[in-house]
Parts: sequence; structure tokens; C-alpha cells
Amino acid sequence: MAGNSFGQIFKVSTFGESHGKAVGVVVDGCPAGLDIDAAFIQQEMARRRPGQSNIVTQRQEEDAIEILSGVFEGKATGSPIAMMVYNEDARSKDYSHIADKYRPSHADFTYQIKYGLRDYRGGGRSSARETLARVAAGALAKIFLKQNGISVHAYVSQVGHLATEKPYQLLDMQLIEATAVRCPDLEVAEQMIELIKAVRKDGDTIGGIIQGVVQGCPIGLGEPAFDKLHADLAKAVMSINACKGFEFGSGFAGVTMRGSQHNDIFYTEDGKIKTKTNHSGGIQGGISNGMDIHFRVAFKPVATIVPAQFSVNEAGEEVEITGKGRHDPCVLPRAVPIVEAMTALVLADHLLRQRATKMEHKKIYLNLFERCLLRRAKPLYR
Amino acid sequence: MAGNSFGQIFKVSTFGESHGKAVGVVVDGCPAGLDIDAAFIQQEMARRRPGQSNIVTQRQEEDAIEILSGVFEGKATGSPIAMMVYNEDARSKDYSHIADKYRPSHADFTYQIKYGLRDYRGGGRSSARETLARVAAGALAKIFLKQNGISVHAYVSQVGHLATEKPYQLLDMQLIEATAVRCPDLEVAEQMIELIKAVRKDGDTIGGIIQGVVQGCPIGLGEPAFDKLHADLAKAVMSINACKGFEFGSGFAGVTMRGSQHNDIFYTEDGKIKTKTNHSGGIQGGISNGMDIHFRVAFKPVATIVPAQFSVNEAGEEVEITGKGRHDPCVLPRAVPIVEAMTALVLADHLLRQRATKMEHKKIYLNLFERCLLRRAKPLYR
Amino acid sequence: MAGNSFGQIFKVSTFGESHGKAVGVVVDGCPAGLDIDAAFIQQEMARRRPGQSNIVTQRQEEDAIEILSGVFEGKATGSPIAMMVYNEDARSKDYSHIADKYRPSHADFTYQIKYGLRDYRGGGRSSARETLARVAAGALAKIFLKQNGISVHAYVSQVGHLATEKPYQLLDMQLIEATAVRCPDLEVAEQMIELIKAVRKDGDTIGGIIQGVVQGCPIGLGEPAFDKLHADLAKAVMSINACKGFEFGSGFAGVTMRGSQHNDIFYTEDGKIKTKTNHSGGIQGGISNGMDIHFRVAFKPVATIVPAQFSVNEAGEEVEITGKGRHDPCVLPRAVPIVEAMTALVLADHLLRQRATKMEHKKIYLNLFERCLLRRAKPLYR
Amino acid sequence: MAGNSFGQIFKVSTFGESHGKAVGVVVDGCPAGLDIDAAFIQQEMARRRPGQSNIVTQRQEEDAIEILSGVFEGKATGSPIAMMVYNEDARSKDYSHIADKYRPSHADFTYQIKYGLRDYRGGGRSSARETLARVAAGALAKIFLKQNGISVHAYVSQVGHLATEKPYQLLDMQLIEATAVRCPDLEVAEQMIELIKAVRKDGDTIGGIIQGVVQGCPIGLGEPAFDKLHADLAKAVMSINACKGFEFGSGFAGVTMRGSQHNDIFYTEDGKIKTKTNHSGGIQGGISNGMDIHFRVAFKPVATIVPAQFSVNEAGEEVEITGKGRHDPCVLPRAVPIVEAMTALVLADHLLRQRATKMEHKKIYLNLFERCLLRRAKPLYR
Repeated sequence: MAGNSFGQIFKVSTFGESHGKAVGVVVDGCPAGLDIDAAFIQQEMARRRPGQSNIVTQRQEEDAIEILSGVFEGKATGSPIAMMVYNEDARSKDYSHIADKYRPSHADFTYQIKYGLRDYRGGGRSSARETLARVAAGALAKIFLKQNGISVHAYVSQVGHLATEKPYQLLDMQLIEATAVRCPDLEVAEQMIELIKAVRKDGDTIGGIIQGVVQGCPIGLGEPAFDKLHADLAKAVMSINACKGFEFGSGFAGVTMRGSQHNDIFYTEDGKIKTKTNHSGGIQGGISNGMDIHFRVAFKPVATIVPAQFSVNEAGEEVEITGKGRHDPCVLPRAVPIVEAMTALVLADHLLRQRATKMEHKKIYLNLFERCLLRRAKPLYR
Repeated sequence: MAGNSFGQIFKVSTFGESHGKAVGVVVDGCPAGLDIDAAFIQQEMARRRPGQSNIVTQRQEEDAIEILSGVFEGKATGSPIAMMVYNEDARSKDYSHIADKYRPSHADFTYQIKYGLRDYRGGGRSSARETLARVAAGALAKIFLKQNGISVHAYVSQVGHLATEKPYQLLDMQLIEATAVRCPDLEVAEQMIELIKAVRKDGDTIGGIIQGVVQGCPIGLGEPAFDKLHADLAKAVMSINACKGFEFGSGFAGVTMRGSQHNDIFYTEDGKIKTKTNHSGGIQGGISNGMDIHFRVAFKPVATIVPAQFSVNEAGEEVEITGKGRHDPCVLPRAVPIVEAMTALVLADHLLRQRATKMEHKKIYLNLFERCLLRRAKPLYR
Repeated sequence: MAGNSFGQIFKVSTFGESHGKAVGVVVDGCPAGLDIDAAFIQQEMARRRPGQSNIVTQRQEEDAIEILSGVFEGKATGSPIAMMVYNEDARSKDYSHIADKYRPSHADFTYQIKYGLRDYRGGGRSSARETLARVAAGALAKIFLKQNGISVHAYVSQVGHLATEKPYQLLDMQLIEATAVRCPDLEVAEQMIELIKAVRKDGDTIGGIIQGVVQGCPIGLGEPAFDKLHADLAKAVMSINACKGFEFGSGFAGVTMRGSQHNDIFYTEDGKIKTKTNHSGGIQGGISNGMDIHFRVAFKPVATIVPAQFSVNEAGEEVEITGKGRHDPCVLPRAVPIVEAMTALVLADHLLRQRATKMEHKKIYLNLFERCLLRRAKPLYR
Repeated sequence: MAGNSFGQIFKVSTFGESHGKAVGVVVDGCPAGLDIDAAFIQQEMARRRPGQSNIVTQRQEEDAIEILSGVFEGKATGSPIAMMVYNEDARSKDYSHIADKYRPSHADFTYQIKYGLRDYRGGGRSSARETLARVAAGALAKIFLKQNGISVHAYVSQVGHLATEKPYQLLDMQLIEATAVRCPDLEVAEQMIELIKAVRKDGDTIGGIIQGVVQGCPIGLGEPAFDKLHADLAKAVMSINACKGFEFGSGFAGVTMRGSQHNDIFYTEDGKIKTKTNHSGGIQGGISNGMDIHFRVAFKPVATIVPAQFSVNEAGEEVEITGKGRHDPCVLPRAVPIVEAMTALVLADHLLRQRATKMEHKKIYLNLFERCLLRRAKPLYR
């Protein structure tokens, strides 16, 4: 009810504040037998951690994740997997000057009114530091998805006005990590980095767009009427700090098309039914159709800036605020692994949910040859 | 788990198919004592029903809603409220020709693979006919919200390339129902209607954008970290058939702004804390801040068109399909009450969820005078 | 949140009041492809319906169930299955005399205070008439379980002081329906019937115990730590009207045993691991162990009696109440199908939940020969 | 779905194994503003911890609880409260001899089959060590309940055949902690202690019964039809390790009564409506009626015993097992705080759920004088 859990079967519950003792997550429903690759989890954490490059916040955190439960001899046991990071470089005194002030476009005001009190240090629970827990959980989901042939990628496609013109099909996902900004169009990436540096010099911030791509998704994921796959993806990424918009497939651009242009025509190739175009973004009727799932996510410029701003204090009186805390000039590069994590969590959850859909749960993807063998093998299973 | 329920406290579960016996909804968690205005519910149904004007589908359904339970002497009793409509004008034979064919950009293919079988008549469960149940439930939510001073409006702001230039603040919400297209900018509305008629003449379809506006929302609704108010709104509207994108506040346009431009500066007016701009769209940190909540929703052109299209059948063989069923040339006018309904459901749910947030639940909005009186009255409440 | 839904995957939501328009249920999560045997569902309804014999209430209801959705050509489609019964013989005027009075040990008082108003006709929502919806849903669950080799039986083992001495293993489940009282120990059954008739003559009521037995349950159902199989069974049957206690396996009697007596010793028979005794009641650590699941449920005497009783009205003034409404002298015979239904719902739900537990979901029960073949067949499943 | 969470609004999720790194809990939904009395939480932990007396297991654990999040300046912030204990005295080598053996009446076998692998050290997740997390969470619930005038007590009423004859009304709850066995009938307590010592000398174990009592519960808690207050209590306590039965009010004994004897007659005292007897156990129609809630819980003798027992190993071969691990001769004394914790969690959850039931949430308990004042004060709240 309080909204700190996500997912139905592969369920994550996060806890922790920016300047509290620790931030962590409990993953309940991770399938027993999953190989827990601790190094991979830590590697994902490194992609999100502050201080990783010169275009992100300089708060220094190792974000070394500790696995507390649910793993035995390297494998998930089916019991809850708790993972945690102790906060280290939390300069809480940085925030004492805003204890009774509401920073513009931050959550100070709304938290104060909602809860009647708030942990003002670094935004407390509203800080994006919470997302480290999502990345840890998402890493587990990614391992699970990989074993099911599903890959999840996200990259920065736009910073301010600077956007790559290339569709995702023309970009090499292996280059996402090639630059600090995580745009695989390397030419544009350089410009983005320069832009972010310039913005930082002004003490200002800038927004952008992240593109998400899921490949290898089996047909059949998504639960109409309400838990449509894209609806759950929308909620998942919209719950990331600073996110302002979500579109999949043709998205907002599709509104100007006619149905006759927009419809994705089915055809058969290599014994599989595919669509010639993919305005549907890999999802039809809320259910994955086997094509690539692709979507775009808008992020606003982060609210913490250096120049003085007017605001009010708890008494409603006008005050001036200056941004002393360390912060990101552009949240996009660090948001990439978070978007991937949230996407992976949705897919892992729906992959498990799909197991309950039919009378007999079988491997979803079977080619014709496999079907034949299965038919013969069937007596084994009754 | 199967995804036919929505909401945590004010929870709706819908059932029914396009050409089955009935479509309905069970609302569990409607507060006891709510006045059940059956006429208002029916009026909302009329805004969604087919055949309501000459720019929507001509399937004729009265959609007379029957209240089966949960109401006694005109008031909600706190027990589940079941509401139902029997299907009338269901010409199932219209669909026999597509029993084994997959219509492009419909859910035929994905349902068949997901469930192993499907009710092909009119799209079965994937039909937007399911949304009548949402509108009925949404009407209850609207009554509840109205008693809490909250209004919910949606209107068509764009059809194809035709868009109103006026922001919602300059439009009169009372004019939404003035035209069949439900755009309160009457000049643009006329053009939209002409465009839709032209599209229909071609046997084609067209998409568009719906603007949503919530006014009078108290401060404090929304449950971080995952059930942020805008994340739940995103999921709610994205679960509506044909929806492709969601943005709130500055949305996708905000990505090009600097933080110094984008931040909404707080000030005090009439003893209330407000923001000068509203790029936040009334939601900060996932929690309503008392300003208007505003968002935009993209709808694709509906997939059913008259001209012949190529596709495949269940065997994967190429077939030709022509659209015989009655359908909407543009889903936007009928989607307006659905967007309102889903918005109202989210707000009603969060309004009730908010009651559990603090040690003592008090009326959220109190001016200073009321606070004084409350303080004196307090001994009564121990 | 409002508690009218049960189950996680195989989820049922009931609605309706004793004297409202209709009583019904929505089953969301019934696996697609399940054969919907409408005759069997109706047969289960007949076991619960009033007026079925001369030892139950004489309210006459056919309880003809109408299937409204989710079924196509005799099979579940994976969409919600709504089922409904219109109330017929609802003599609401029978109840006008208690509109402002609180009947002793009924829910009149608690509903009035909880909700601030109540539908007093026949107990409204608190009436056991709600359980017809459970029986309809339970019938679906039973069909599903049967296809998985699982049988669910319940029978009356005690009425007042009259109890069968025979353990369930010595009784023939086929004889449960042989008498109106549903005790398969026919000698005791006759005495029970006489007792109930005598109690009815006094205008009084009497309680009793129902024994539940599940056979053929696969190993592995139940989700520690909280959703242990017996914990979910306890909640399921305790939620039935008039239920006062639940015990499984050795139950309350086991408290006087030593561990060395109580422990169930494992041994191998026919390639399967079994236990020599079954004090565990088929459940160890909250998970089914493949042995019979057996439990006992206590029901109090129903509260509606003919003799005058003192009570209070809404103003707190003393009043006299006489039971005019038709009622059961002993709820046990009609509670048998309800206990079976709730048991079946728990098992169906956990059977589906179990599918998500491991990396690969396989048929749980395999003998050694099957395992060998499976190992060879495995390449098919990558 | 995996069953490691409990509660709807006041929701707890536990994690950790007997011999893993840590055991902990995340409480999501604890009302903001609650005073977090860390000393009280630790005191509750001490009542459950091993090694606390000479009639419990001698495993030595301080069980010093660390609060990781959700608390700021001594108060709950409304964010998740994570609490954790690092395991200390975990002699995992004690268990290597049972790595491939199934201990009788333990969860070794069912875990192995359910999950395909298991953490065999001390029972892993199936160990009652998990319950320390429940006690920590329950302590928060107790603080919340106390502020609402609700007290929760449990005590040992029976060990083996030794039972106190006194009803709870004649016992002093302050004496529960007076003896190591937690039976407030001090004479019987001494006999119980002697019995447990004798049982321990035999290397054996013994079961018993715990009585639970809730006082000061407001009228109106419980959510029909499925989440009846006693149904949720039943599930809550039945989910505790070794629990075999639950009854409330008249329980199993009530089945032999006539309705005319069993009905609780209402009367008015001090302006409050009460019942003369309390066979209902404080709950009618699944909703609290303001009288004491009382129930009894059966615990089996724990399965770990010293004498050699026969069993099977994973290959199904007969093996001999001897109990080397430290264990409790009788689980009852340490189960008392666990029963209290689970009871408190149910009540705290329902107290918050009740806030959403009506159009306007008001303090539930008002005497006539308060009602009058409230009516005059009402204009303040519109």
C-alpha cells in the first residue's frame, strides 16, 4: 500500500534514505536455482554509482553491495534475497541550511505535508540514491532474462537539443559503455559530453531522453486488461526520479498517422510470424508479439542547481536557497542502468506470470521440429 | 496476477468480452455512505457508448448499466458494488471470417499465442468494449472525488495534425461536451470533426492526443518510491486500448530546458504555498503539490480499417483481410470519458491510501483559522 | 484491501447480498484451456443451495448459475470468468422488524458501526448466501485440480456431541452424498439427522465439525514464510460464516505428545518418499509433502433461533427479538461443499504459484523412469 | 507471491536464514510520526532470543537489532523501516551431517523438492530464527496499537497435559514475564518448568497451547468477506513455526452448544453496547465488536530431538539421524512474543485499513458527550 514494492511474482521492496545508514532491497520471488553472479551485480552498481566520471555528481560512494540472504553456494534458494549498501560519503551537514526550506521542484514540500515530518538530509527517501536498490535487483532480473534469451538495453538518445538521428537498429549496443554519457552514437556522445560540461560550468542542469530496447522477448508477456506489458513498463520507468514521459513504438509521433500506414503487417519468416514494420513497439493488445520492444523516456533537468533561487520556508515566508549539495548536471548517463533495471524487473515478473496462464505450462518458443518431438514425448508428462 | 484488477483500496475488477453475454465491473472498497447517483453513472456511460454521434462506430448499444449489489437506499454500503451491461447489438457473424486470421496491429495473434485459444468475436476481451466497465467504476470515483473538492477533466487536444494551440487554462471545460469530438476549442473542434469524417470516408482511421486536467487535488497524494502519483496515472491511462504515450507537466518538451528555467518557484498566496510555474504538472517527488495536475496521452489510429490488408492465418500462410466490423474512425472522442475514468480511479485510490499515512488522519486541507479551532477542539479526539 | 477477494493467481472476488439483486463471483486467473463443465458447477451449487433437504433452511432458491464471460466454446479463455445467480425467494419484509435492532451473535451491530449504515435484509452482505459464489468458483478450481490428479473432500464428522469414531481412512468418500447430513459413516449420519430434526423442533440450532481431506496433492505447494499451505487453508476456511476453529494433522491433540512420538518417520515405497505416520497432516514447513492433507473445522450453532431473545436497538435500548426468517438448524450439511470450495481455491492457487518457484518449471511428480526419459528429452527444452 | 510478506497497509517483509549473514525485516506502511522506541523493540527481541533461560535452546545470540532506515529524530518518517540482526553463534558445521538427509517432521524434504536445492544449515529459511524479524516488526505494531488504546497479550496456558484451569480474566497479564515459561498462573508455571526440564533430560520435546488476548480493540476492525478479523488472525498465527491449530471464542468446544446457549446477548453499559457472554471471542461477522478478542493456538512438540531416528537421504535410502544442533525442548515460552507480534501486526493493519471504510474517517470510539461536541465542531471539517 505504501508504495515501496514493485512486481507481482518477481517482487522487489526497497528501503533507505540518502543520508541514512543504508540503502537496500529485498527481492522476493527470484526463482530458485538462479546463478547469483555477484561480480555482475557489482558491475551494474558501478554503472549507476556517483563519482564514476567527470560528468556526474562527485559524491564518492563505492556502493559495494552486500548480499545478506537467499543465496546458498552461489545459487538463489527461492528465499528472499536481501542486498544492501551502507552509506559512506553522506555529508549531512551540507543540508542543515535547508532543514526548514522547500527547494524548488524538489520533494521537500510534498513530503513535509504528506508525512507531517521529513528527513531533509539529501532529500531523504526522495533522493535518487534509492535507485541503487533497483539496480541491484535489476541485475538479478537481467541474469534471469539472459538465461531466457532476453536482452535489455538502454542508452542516452538525447541531451537537451542534442539527439542522435540514428534509430536503435543502426547503433551498436556494445558502444553504450564506450563513453561517459552512454550514447552509442559516438559522434553525438562527444557533443553531449561537452554540453553537459558547459551546463555544469553554469551550475545548471539539463534534461534528455533515454531509449530502451528489449530483444528476444518471447510472445505472450503482458496481462490484459490493466497489467498490459507497456502499461507496466510505463509505470516502472515513470517511477524513476525526474522522469516526465514515456512512449513506446510509434508513440506521440504516431498520432498523426492513418491506420492504413500505422498497421504492422504480419508475414512469416523462418517459420516464425513477424511484422514488417514495428509501430506497435513489440506489444499488441498489451502482450509482447516477439518483435523488439522499444520505448523512449523523457527526463527533466534535475532540480538541484548552484545559482540562488527564491523559495519559501515551512512558515510560508520567502527565502533564498543556494545549492550546496553535490549533484548531477545531467541525470541521463546514470539513469541508463536504472531504466534497464526497471525494464528487466517488469520483464522478469511477466515472464514468471506467464507460466500460470495456461492449463499446462510449456516452453513458449518451440519451432516446428521441437513441436513434433514434444508431441511424441508427451506421454511422459501426463 | 492476471491483470483484470486495478487499484489498491478503491479496487476495480472488470470482466466481459465484446460479443459475450455481458460486460461488467466489481468495485471493492468504495467508501460506505457514498451517494450512488445512478443517473450520473448512466450519463457517463452515454459519453462512451457507441452510436452516440456520426463520428463514432455505429454499433448500437444502450449500455444501460445495472447495479447488482453494494447499494442500499441509494448509498454505498461498503460491500462490493457490481455493475453490468448485457451486450445487445453483437453481430458475431461479422467476425467468422477472421476466426483463424490475425488482423494487423490487433491482439488476435498475441492472444492466440498467450492463451492457446481465443474468443475471436470482435476481439473478445481485447476489445475496447471492456472500457465501459471502467467508465462505470470511474463514475463512482468521480462522485467520491467531487465530495472532496476534486474535479477531473479530459478533452481532445489533437486529431492527426490538427491541434488546439490554447493551453488548458484558456479553455472552458464546460465546452468539452459541446461538440461530438470533445475539444473545447470550438473552432478547432469543427475542423477535427471534418477531418474525422474525411478519414471515415476513406475507410481509414486517425490518432490524436487527449489532455487531462485535475483540479482541487489536495497536497500529499502519491506513494513513493514506486507508486508515485504520476507513475500510477501513467499505468492507468496506458492501459487504455490504443494508448501509446504519456507525459505530465513539461513532459518530453521539458528535456531541452535548463534546471534554472524548469524549476517551479514556490511562493505564498492567500496563506497557501503555490508554485509560480507548473512544469512539475502538480506532482513533485511523486506526490501531488496542490497545483493542477495536467498530462497528455497519445492514441494511435485504431487498427480496424476498411481497405484490404495482407496478413497471415494461424498456419502462418498469407491471407487478405477486409474490415467488415463496425468501428471508430477516430477513437479520441469516446476515449475522453475513459481517460477521465482511469484518472478518477487513480485519484480516488490515492485519496483513500493517504488516510493511512500518518499517526492521526486529519482533513488535509486546513486554513490557519481552522487549525486554530482544531487545536482547541483536540481534547475531543483522544 | 476491502476483503472481498481471495487468492493470488487463481483469484476470486465475490459480490452480492442476501436480498439484493444478485450474488456472483469473478474468477481472474483461471488457466486458459480449462474445460468449463457447466453441469458440474450447477451440481456443486445444488449441494449448497437452500431447500435441498428437510434438515436445512426452506428458503427456495434454484441458484441457477449464469456464466457471463471468460468462456468460449466450452473452454476458459484466460479472461475473467464472471458467474452470477439472481436472487429469487427473497422475502425482505421478513426483516423489517429488525431494521434498527441488533440480533445476538449476528453481524448487525458490527456492520452498523463499521460502515455507518447497513443492508439489514437477511444480514445483507454478512449472510452466508455470499458463499454460493465461493462454491461456483470452487467448482472451477476442482476441475483444474482433478486434471492434476488432486481430489478434495469434506464431510460432517460431528454434530453436537455426535461424532463418528472412524478416521477418514476408514470411510468411503463416495458415501458423503448418501445422506442429507453428509457424514459418510451412515450409522452416525442417521443419528445426526435425528438430532438436527430435534433441534429444529425446538427452534434452536447446533454446531459441529467438518473433516477435510486432500488426496493426490503434489509435493511442494505452499509459500513460506507467511503463505504456508496450512496458514492459507486456515484463513480460507475460517473466513466461512460460523467457523470458529481450524486444526490440521495432529492439531490440538498433538500438544500432549512428545517429539519422539509425533515425528513422522520417512521411508521409501515404490520409489516415492513417504512418512509412516501423518501427524504433519501432509504439510511440513508449510509445504505439502505428498501425503494426504487432513484438517478439521469447527462450526458454531447458527445465531438465528426461533425463541425470543433480549437485545438492544441502535439507540442502545433493550428490545426483544424473535427469529422470523427461515434458517438452518445446523449449518454443517450445507457447509461441506463450501469447505471443499475454499480448500480447492487454496490448492489451485498454490498449484499455479508453484510454477514460478524454480528456474525451469517442470512437472513436479516424476518417477525414476520418467526422470531418465526427461533427461534424454531435455535438449528440446532449451 | 512468494510468501514472505504479510499485511496490506502495515506490511512486513522478512528475509534471512538461520545460518546466513543476517535476518531482517522491512516494514512498509508504518504511519509517519510513530515514536520509534528502540529500547522497547530490543526488549521484545530479548523475550524471543535463544539462550534467555535454562528451558530454551542454548544457542547464544544477542539479537541486537539495527534500524537501517525510515526513522529520523526518533520518529517514523513514513518510509520503509528496515531492521536487521547479524547472525553470530551460527555453528554451521553442526549441520554438515544432514546435508543430504531429511530430518523427520522438518522441512528438509519439502524444501528440497519445492526449490530443487536448499540451505541445509540449521534449516535455512525454514528455521524459526526467521521469527525474530516478526518480533521486531510486531514491536512497532505494538507501539502503534498502544497509542490507540489497544493491548495485546499472549501466555502459555498448557504444556503437554499441564494446563492452567483459570480463564484469562482471572490471570494477571503482568505475571506473564514472571517465570521463564510465561504462564501467569505461577503455580502451574512451576510445574510446566519442571516438565520441560524433564523432557529436555530425555532429549525429547513437548507441545502446548498459547492463549492470546486483545483488549481495547475498537469496534469495526475486519474486512468481510475473506479478510475477516479472525481469518487473518488464524493465518497470522498459523504461519508461526510448529503451529497446528487455531480457535477463537468458543472454538472447538462451542460445537456442542445450542444456539440459544451460545448467542451473546447485547446490553448497554456506561453508554456502550456490550455482550453478556463472549462466545464470539470479540468478533462477529468477521468484525471486532469491542469485547475482548481471545483465541488459543496449538503448538506441536518441535521436531529436533536427541535420540536417533530413522529417515531417508536424498537418494531415498534409509539412514539414521541424531540431533546434534541446539534446540528448544519446548517452543512455547519463546513463541509467546511471536504470537503477540503476529496478533499485533494483524490489528495494526486492520486499524489502518478501517480508515478507508467510510466517506469520512472519524475517530471510531466516541461517547455521547464527544458526539455532541463533534456535531457542533463539524463545520470545521468540510
